[in-house]
Amino acid sequence: MKKAVILLSGGLDSTTVLAIAKKEGYDCFALSFDYGQRHKSELQNAKEIANSYNVKEHKIAKIDLTIFAGSSLTSQLDVKKNSLKENKEIPNTYVAARNTIFLSYALAYAETIRAEDIFIGVNAVDYSNYPDCRPEFIAAYENMANLATAISINGEVRFKINSPLINLSKKEIIQFGISLGVDYSKTHSCYDPILVEGQIFSCAECDSCLFRLQAFQDLGIKDEIKYLKKD
Amino acid sequence: MKKAVILLSGGLDSTTVLAIAKKEGYDCFALSFDYGQRHKSELQNAKEIANSYNVKEHKIAKIDLTIFAGSSLTSQLDVKKNSLKENKEIPNTYVAARNTIFLSYALAYAETIRAEDIFIGVNAVDYSNYPDCRPEFIAAYENMANLATAISINGEVRFKINSPLINLSKKEIIQFGISLGVDYSKTHSCYDPILVEGQIFSCAECDSCLFRLQAFQDLGIKDEIKYLKKD
Repeated sequence: MKKAVILLSGGLDSTTVLAIAKKEGYDCFALSFDYGQRHKSELQNAKEIANSYNVKEHKIAKIDLTIFAGSSLTSQLDVKKNSLKENKEIPNTYVAARNTIFLSYALAYAETIRAEDIFIGVNAVDYSNYPDCRPEFIAAYENMANLATAISINGEVRFKINSPLINLSKKEIIQFGISLGVDYSKTHSCYDPILVEGQIFSCAECDSCLFRLQAFQDLGIKDEIKYLKKD
Repeated sequence: MKKAVILLSGGLDSTTVLAIAKKEGYDCFALSFDYGQRHKSELQNAKEIANSYNVKEHKIAKIDLTIFAGSSLTSQLDVKKNSLKENKEIPNTYVAARNTIFLSYALAYAETIRAEDIFIGVNAVDYSNYPDCRPEFIAAYENMANLATAISINGEVRFKINSPLINLSKKEIIQFGISLGVDYSKTHSCYDPILVEGQIFSCAECDSCLFRLQAFQDLGIKDEIKYLKKD
């Protein structure tokens, strides 16, 4: 059975990607990161999702991105709210070289278990301002990866970076996921979730919440996760 | 003043690279990794060298490569000894995708401080069996890096991965370094150093020691670090 490494944050996109890889018949090896997120709930989601998809292994790599200041996702900067309309610049939720680092760990993991396929849930449509979510970045990464490892230069494997969501809108991603049976109530998206009496609530105001809510609304489907201001 | 990120292990090669970058007039920002090395002495060397070269900043990123089994440098595997003659395969000191991961952190750091130049002490001559020490890997990485970050895609910077040692033999590296005033007695090379009564001794038997000793011998210069079986 062919093996794949799946970058799994526990978010809407990466969960859909895991469902796609399972559907395509891969033995799935999930990889998540503990990178100083504001809220650890994200990792709990990832664990539950990995379990529910019966992955062969789920590794959580502890990495230290906080030494690189500058992103609201790993520091004390405020996450920008209600900014979709003015969203022409790269938002401050951008973490320097994040997907490059994540893919590099995935590559190391893939080489170790001899997997040819790496899956990542990047998406160029809704997040067109993140440089490392674009097809040209993914293609350049794949080219580099095949020059980087022992098993690729000896011809044993040809690595492929699969980004099946890259040209889909958030609405199309959810439609696709639902057709594969994804339970989106288990996924999170919020950049700035809030813990209230032991329960996680999404803010409904950050870019990620706004994209998600809009997509569910367009589909006429209720989003079953808890929002702070909506419920 | 132009800025550079220097990948600094505290070894012979990376110390020479730091000396080169200083000589070329860069403001140097050193980056080392705590990746579960067998011996922490390596990081102590890196700190002393960074200080002696008056770097602007020295970051030590804690990264978790031990979750990827398979290399004698991060696990309990024995380091192969006296194997230079039979060295046609990739040795078991190879860590999967290591330089890919190191460069990815360097790229994140470079983006954060807006440095265009990254320096890495890879060397294709003596270590021709490490896939991620070859010019084609470095070129592919540089191409990918320029598609990966906010400041490169908006045209603010053009990243350059500098590998000034890539075509030099160990002997040539040491000659070059001596001409720049590098004090090699502060550097280490051994894959399997031994702590005896609080002092670090190099094994004189691993590939890295053998290359180093041969180079010093060819140059007719005494290597001032302590070897277990030589002194």
